[in-house]
Amino acid sequence: MTGDIKMTKVGFIGLGIMGLPMAINLKNAGIELMVNDLNHQSVKQMTDLGALEGTKAQIGKECSIIFMILPNGMIVKDAVFGKDGIASAVKKGTVICDMSSVTPVQSKECYNRLEKMGVSFVDAPVSGGEPGAVSGTLAIMAGGEQDAFDRLIPYFEIMGSSALLIGGSGSGSITKLANQVIVNMNIAAVSEAFVLASKAGADPSKVYEAIRGGLAGSAVLDAKMPMILERNFNPGGKISINHKDIKNVVETAHEIDVPVPFTSQLFEIFQALKVAGHMNDDHAGIVQYFEK
Amino acid sequence: MTGDIKMTKVGFIGLGIMGLPMAINLKNAGIELMVNDLNHQSVKQMTDLGALEGTKAQIGKECSIIFMILPNGMIVKDAVFGKDGIASAVKKGTVICDMSSVTPVQSKECYNRLEKMGVSFVDAPVSGGEPGAVSGTLAIMAGGEQDAFDRLIPYFEIMGSSALLIGGSGSGSITKLANQVIVNMNIAAVSEAFVLASKAGADPSKVYEAIRGGLAGSAVLDAKMPMILERNFNPGGKISINHKDIKNVVETAHEIDVPVPFTSQLFEIFQALKVAGHMNDDHAGIVQYFEK
Amino acid sequence: MTGDIKMTKVGFIGLGIMGLPMAINLKNAGIELMVNDLNHQSVKQMTDLGALEGTKAQIGKECSIIFMILPNGMIVKDAVFGKDGIASAVKKGTVICDMSSVTPVQSKECYNRLEKMGVSFVDAPVSGGEPGAVSGTLAIMAGGEQDAFDRLIPYFEIMGSSALLIGGSGSGSITKLANQVIVNMNIAAVSEAFVLASKAGADPSKVYEAIRGGLAGSAVLDAKMPMILERNFNPGGKISINHKDIKNVVETAHEIDVPVPFTSQLFEIFQALKVAGHMNDDHAGIVQYFEK
Amino acid sequence: MTGDIKMTKVGFIGLGIMGLPMAINLKNAGIELMVNDLNHQSVKQMTDLGALEGTKAQIGKECSIIFMILPNGMIVKDAVFGKDGIASAVKKGTVICDMSSVTPVQSKECYNRLEKMGVSFVDAPVSGGEPGAVSGTLAIMAGGEQDAFDRLIPYFEIMGSSALLIGGSGSGSITKLANQVIVNMNIAAVSEAFVLASKAGADPSKVYEAIRGGLAGSAVLDAKMPMILERNFNPGGKISINHKDIKNVVETAHEIDVPVPFTSQLFEIFQALKVAGHMNDDHAGIVQYFEK
Repeated sequence: MTGDIKMTKVGFIGLGIMGLPMAINLKNAGIELMVNDLNHQSVKQMTDLGALEGTKAQIGKECSIIFMILPNGMIVKDAVFGKDGIASAVKKGTVICDMSSVTPVQSKECYNRLEKMGVSFVDAPVSGGEPGAVSGTLAIMAGGEQDAFDRLIPYFEIMGSSALLIGGSGSGSITKLANQVIVNMNIAAVSEAFVLASKAGADPSKVYEAIRGGLAGSAVLDAKMPMILERNFNPGGKISINHKDIKNVVETAHEIDVPVPFTSQLFEIFQALKVAGHMNDDHAGIVQYFEK
Repeated sequence: MTGDIKMTKVGFIGLGIMGLPMAINLKNAGIELMVNDLNHQSVKQMTDLGALEGTKAQIGKECSIIFMILPNGMIVKDAVFGKDGIASAVKKGTVICDMSSVTPVQSKECYNRLEKMGVSFVDAPVSGGEPGAVSGTLAIMAGGEQDAFDRLIPYFEIMGSSALLIGGSGSGSITKLANQVIVNMNIAAVSEAFVLASKAGADPSKVYEAIRGGLAGSAVLDAKMPMILERNFNPGGKISINHKDIKNVVETAHEIDVPVPFTSQLFEIFQALKVAGHMNDDHAGIVQYFEK
Repeated sequence: MTGDIKMTKVGFIGLGIMGLPMAINLKNAGIELMVNDLNHQSVKQMTDLGALEGTKAQIGKECSIIFMILPNGMIVKDAVFGKDGIASAVKKGTVICDMSSVTPVQSKECYNRLEKMGVSFVDAPVSGGEPGAVSGTLAIMAGGEQDAFDRLIPYFEIMGSSALLIGGSGSGSITKLANQVIVNMNIAAVSEAFVLASKAGADPSKVYEAIRGGLAGSAVLDAKMPMILERNFNPGGKISINHKDIKNVVETAHEIDVPVPFTSQLFEIFQALKVAGHMNDDHAGIVQYFEK
Repeated sequence: MTGDIKMTKVGFIGLGIMGLPMAINLKNAGIELMVNDLNHQSVKQMTDLGALEGTKAQIGKECSIIFMILPNGMIVKDAVFGKDGIASAVKKGTVICDMSSVTPVQSKECYNRLEKMGVSFVDAPVSGGEPGAVSGTLAIMAGGEQDAFDRLIPYFEIMGSSALLIGGSGSGSITKLANQVIVNMNIAAVSEAFVLASKAGADPSKVYEAIRGGLAGSAVLDAKMPMILERNFNPGGKISINHKDIKNVVETAHEIDVPVPFTSQLFEIFQALKVAGHMNDDHAGIVQYFEK
């Protein structure tokens, strides 16, 4: 990490569960930060560390690197293009990096509109959850231009343990969505399989022990089976977050005309879990759908 | 391993892709074997190594430990209870170990009928495929009585690298089926996710690189994504074998009244792949369903 | 109807909800009947009307036309080929007509085995339910040889209002199964659509009134929507019966390798309804799955 | 029909396959019409009949009753609220009636925004297709206020053979969507059932004949089976139109959190049909998905 990243004023919009620890890590690494969030307490926590507070337009005007991590793509577009948003004051040559989980269609829309203004846009969602955000070990999946990505690398090195440029604009977002399909479908498959085995009379902890070392083994199996066995659905990764991501997958697939028979069924299961009041459970709680 | 397992005459029925290398490993470890198969070449390969050939009834009469690994549950039941089958001549106290992949309902039926004859039955299907059978590193999942399982341990140690008694009769079979659900659903999920990502414009090898270290990581992802990327569907684990296993899952679930919404859709996909002529592809070839 | 059908001794096996009124109609039309059922009360009801009672073997020996209507294909096969079954004493030239709802694979198996004995077999399941059985207005769908079908016509005219030879052996059974797919899928579709409309705030009775005259109109809509609106799930056609028929569809499709993505999902819904204790509801009660 | 409807200037926006014959019927009944469409030929056809041409703003300014029938909800919203749209010049007390097939969420949004301007909005999609539009026999399903609906009745009587006020705003749109779910799911069910019966060896025309009079009977069966038997997929109701409507159903269900497991699978099938190039077939062509 070279001295010059400490001479660049960096914007950071979105100080939620993920964004706050990410911003703290940047600040603690000596980055000059201007932050923005509706939550005054989170902003105060940052200004106590020496960060400046600014409106979105101020951040657009003063910062040449701007990070965002916001709840969904509508809010991202509003932060950039809405009244008094970043774009109302942004300088040519700025790099805006959206680390939110949105659809690739939304990412490309931001990229295209900003490109006409001479501003770079990189979609760079993350995996690793709150623990990864706190420890600075997120996995970052990026889409956009190589030179814009390169300018972000020093900051990615602070916030994450890996950052990969997958391809053009939207590639980061689609990679995150593909990740979420695999993770949540695997939880559903593990759930269906273990409910079947249990109802057939087998001890699920023994079944887990027997199969975890083979082709059925996965990060999901090792992370979620202990939670399922202990009936512990404290999040971790909430069903509500995954519900939103899987909805983004379905919408993306519908927009670009790719059939997704399993993911669409998975989303219906998330809908049933929502109706049944499970949105704040960890997504290990998907198993509850199969136990009925 | 003690000397006495070399003094026990052991039967082995079924010298197919899995059974032949398993029997060779037993013979090479000094076990006295009597073998049976319709394939004369496989039998000759065993007799050349010093094994005896015998009918099923002879094996029933002369062997106190009998292993079977056969294509499906109907053939297993016929080998045991059919005309001139094992049961026509079997001695009290014999342990019959079925290493085939069958339904737990079929396993329990064998167990119950043999129990009345004073004969033990252990269902003990395996994972690890042909390479595991050749190298003696199969994972063995067993269901039955502890004392019968204990008598099989020395042989399991030759054929596998792990053997676990999951529970009562049928528990081994249901564990194998649960394993197959998780493996094949995960391949399907990976397929759907990567087809979506590719059609959205992302390079699938970069997507793989980006997500494999996180919660989406699995033995399936590392074993099958390289095959998918290289369009190499040489088996490995044939779709035909997995088609049969998933059919067994669906039948089991239907018999014991457990809803399996994903597995039943997965089987329909296997049916479509069968109609399209993909039964001899590796199950990585499931991806072809999603690429249409 | 000619006098000679009154000179033929006719067997009738299975005096259940459907079989008893069908047998009564035959007897009342002057047919000489020999009946068989485990239920003594039903048999007595028939003998009080002048029918004879006989074992299956007696019926095989003495009757040249034999009707059966039994709960499932295993019981049918046992009645024909089991110990002391019809086939143990049947005469060449007899026509056996199975009006049960079974799989076409089971029908063809009976046909093939009986053909070798010089006995004709016609699969002829019915629709119209108990009211149709009582009033003699069943719709009869037959599979088998034309000459055997022709010999059954006079009896079909008593029991039903239509009888159609669809084609070779098994064609009647597959027609009944196709019928059940369409009926039950339509109930499920109506259920899903009306639950959606209701939750969106529309009055379901108004929606029904608005759409019933158009392309959404159907016998199912007119028969089942009033029951759904009144929350009246008294059978009519029990879920248990339709559960069995849809299971037969899935098994048939799996045996002849036809993908049935919707029917397999429908069966999983029937499984969920079974687990939830709805087997004795009318199949209009499928709606309860969608209301959760 | 009273004289005064001939003294009211009526707007009509959207002269497509449906809109043009509907407008012709209004004009031929003596209504004073001001029309708008991008297609000059259609507009000329109307002005030749004596209609006036007007911009959307002119129609808003001069007409107290305005009908629209447009391709989708985005276009509807643009026609009303876009630059120089109806709302830019509309008078208090006007009734706007949208006969397009859109989501109830979109209908309610129009209703709410117009209500604040003192303008009534009625969603009133239709069924009956082009033939119904030409012959003035459409079925009209309306949502909105009773008084606004009442003012539309004289015109509905010209364009349709029935018009029903289902309930509040959006009720017409959800009724149309429910209709489309039932129609298209029934086509899919009929397709799956007949492909199964055919592959099992039965003659589909005989199966159709056997079941059409019973509980499997429906308007869909009688309208679409002859097309399927003749391999005639000339529209009629195009897959593209139904694809759009089913997408609206899925989006609506996802917005109001109602699980729709069958409709979501149906949409994936429409996606597969789109990828395979079947968008211009009649929706009887859904059968092609099942024949693969």
